[in-house]
Amino acid sequence: MFSLTVRDRMMVAHSLADPFFGAAQRLHGATYVVELTLWADRLDQHGVVADLGVVASGLRAVLAGLELRNLDDEPSLAGVLTTTEVLAREVADRCAARLAVGPHVTEVEAVLRESDVAWASYRRPAREA
Amino acid sequence: MFSLTVRDRMMVAHSLADPFFGAAQRLHGATYVVELTLWADRLDQHGVVADLGVVASGLRAVLAGLELRNLDDEPSLAGVLTTTEVLAREVADRCAARLAVGPHVTEVEAVLRESDVAWASYRRPAREA
Amino acid sequence: MFSLTVRDRMMVAHSLADPFFGAAQRLHGATYVVELTLWADRLDQHGVVADLGVVASGLRAVLAGLELRNLDDEPSLAGVLTTTEVLAREVADRCAARLAVGPHVTEVEAVLRESDVAWASYRRPAREA
Amino acid sequence: MFSLTVRDRMMVAHSLADPFFGAAQRLHGATYVVELTLWADRLDQHGVVADLGVVASGLRAVLAGLELRNLDDEPSLAGVLTTTEVLAREVADRCAARLAVGPHVTEVEAVLRESDVAWASYRRPAREA
Amino acid sequence: MFSLTVRDRMMVAHSLADPFFGAAQRLHGATYVVELTLWADRLDQHGVVADLGVVASGLRAVLAGLELRNLDDEPSLAGVLTTTEVLAREVADRCAARLAVGPHVTEVEAVLRESDVAWASYRRPAREA
Amino acid sequence: MFSLTVRDRMMVAHSLADPFFGAAQRLHGATYVVELTLWADRLDQHGVVADLGVVASGLRAVLAGLELRNLDDEPSLAGVLTTTEVLAREVADRCAARLAVGPHVTEVEAVLRESDVAWASYRRPAREA
Repeated sequence: MFSLTVRDRMMVAHSLADPFFGAAQRLHGATYVVELTLWADRLDQHGVVADLGVVASGLRAVLAGLELRNLDDEPSLAGVLTTTEVLAREVADRCAARLAVGPHVTEVEAVLRESDVAWASYRRPAREA
Repeated sequence: MFSLTVRDRMMVAHSLADPFFGAAQRLHGATYVVELTLWADRLDQHGVVADLGVVASGLRAVLAGLELRNLDDEPSLAGVLTTTEVLAREVADRCAARLAVGPHVTEVEAVLRESDVAWASYRRPAREA
Repeated sequence: MFSLTVRDRMMVAHSLADPFFGAAQRLHGATYVVELTLWADRLDQHGVVADLGVVASGLRAVLAGLELRNLDDEPSLAGVLTTTEVLAREVADRCAARLAVGPHVTEVEAVLRESDVAWASYRRPAREA
Repeated sequence: MFSLTVRDRMMVAHSLADPFFGAAQRLHGATYVVELTLWADRLDQHGVVADLGVVASGLRAVLAGLELRNLDDEPSLAGVLTTTEVLAREVADRCAARLAVGPHVTEVEAVLRESDVAWASYRRPAREA
Repeated sequence: MFSLTVRDRMMVAHSLADPFFGAAQRLHGATYVVELTLWADRLDQHGVVADLGVVASGLRAVLAGLELRNLDDEPSLAGVLTTTEVLAREVADRCAARLAVGPHVTEVEAVLRESDVAWASYRRPAREA
Repeated sequence: MFSLTVRDRMMVAHSLADPFFGAAQRLHGATYVVELTLWADRLDQHGVVADLGVVASGLRAVLAGLELRNLDDEPSLAGVLTTTEVLAREVADRCAARLAVGPHVTEVEAVLRESDVAWASYRRPAREA
């Protein structure tokens, strides 16, 4: 099994409107350091999982659609509780949809690091079934 | 598949009483930077794998029961060769027992980093079968 | 010259209301990983720059007064453009005021890492002249 | 499942002779920070996945056979497009062949970090079928 | 004293043609993770040491002029022994020349990390005397 | 001003026999990730602050004289309260004595990281006055 990972980052505001989250119900924010990994059973004809530049650009485009915003006002996330886990899924889903990965790529994973001591991830098939 | 990870640390003394370990048979010590991960197939009703604060507190409590001690004299580890691998299992087992994770949490993993260049991990089911 | 450093973190929302900042004029947020350093010409009678636990608690208290908030609405920062540099000074000033460091401590420095690729710092005398 | 990881590094020159790689077709170079992981279902009689010193020495020997060279002129890599993915497989294969791991070790993985923002990995059975 | 730092990276080949360097006389390569810091006595009217985006773009432009090349063939480095220290000075000098920093910026520093265990830096006045 | 840094590590047991240190009066231990920096006003005839290999070997030798030991029983530290600050000075002093640095090297600094969230340093002239 091969993998390829690129790292980027986004800075957002949001609140978690559920008493479960205590002080995090208040409007606050986060820098998410994001690691996007593609998993593949084999390499393509160029000896790679995917074109590193294309993957980095795709992740950049996905993060550009979220960063420097208040996620509470983001139409594409209306009604979504934007926990780190949910945002990890959102980033993984958007990257999977945007990247035209070859059939040898089996899974996509996003890790979102909200600080040096806490992070969450979501791993999914590279394509819808 | 989702995951949630928190990081904490503990400082202990110990020795590895087996000629296999060479100089590490002598009493020495380590800082273990510990990463506890919970793995889940889905998120709970709050959109999380688990309450981050509860997981961090649970890990803290487990490490508080081991840190700033000589593990050679620790009753709960009597007769145990406290390699990094064994301590990773110990931490994972104690966290699994302490944390009341929901049924959507499938596995628990502890990574113990003994330095910037060496670490070990243990991953296990979230509950006993 | 000796130094002692502790690391902690805070998550905040804010906006930078000056056209100079482009998209960062929008409400967004950041995780600041904070490193507080005390500099000293010599060690105290306990062989330390300062009590590590006291320094860590002091930094925690200062960050607790800022974190999980929208800094745009924070009374103690009214009218302040909360750039990373300004927040570094704010954290350093508050820690200097709170920590009862001995006379051997000469300077206090705060580094605020807004991501893995950007950070700012402020270093100042440990006491007002 | 247990794991044990050691980290080392190598500095090499190479070029990627395929128009697919754009500017990386030019002769350039990289520092690869390498993490070698052994995975095991259980621990051996010493309470470890493997002897940490032996694993570190084995990885060192493998990297010593590649580092401080131009990989384009390396006989053992003749005709190989030395992408990070391919080098990860090469390092994993060579380590698997060199390390006399016990039967409880099931898999070997090499992660090659080409920078702070990009890396690749290869994971394989510990022994040939 | 304030500082602002941005991080970027470049991948190059080179050789060190002096018997002093042993095996590093051979053509090899490195990833340099570069941290460029500006030091300032005070902040400008926007509350910053400098425009973070401008500094990041300036560093990118400087690194783009060196990366993905064999430095042995780089005309602007002809006759230069490209040790990490020398490259740190080169990057700092080029950034100082390129960035139109305000008079409150007093010094420029470049740190070049050639691996996780070795790095060098050069710090100089922000302007020629 | 130039600098050159190498990183290494040591694992030790010790206790801090002073009520000031609370629970750290008990025998415990630490991994110290050590960064040794040499500072120089200019480079030598080889374009370096010092021979990286020589510096790394010198640090290794100094750490080998301390690691995998209980520092409470270490004759060379008899009567010494081995705080992180004191050990940073000890490592810096021993490295300054061992390394035959050229006259262009002005200062030596040791940073000892006791965990991911706490560290101390000591910086001194490269030679006795």
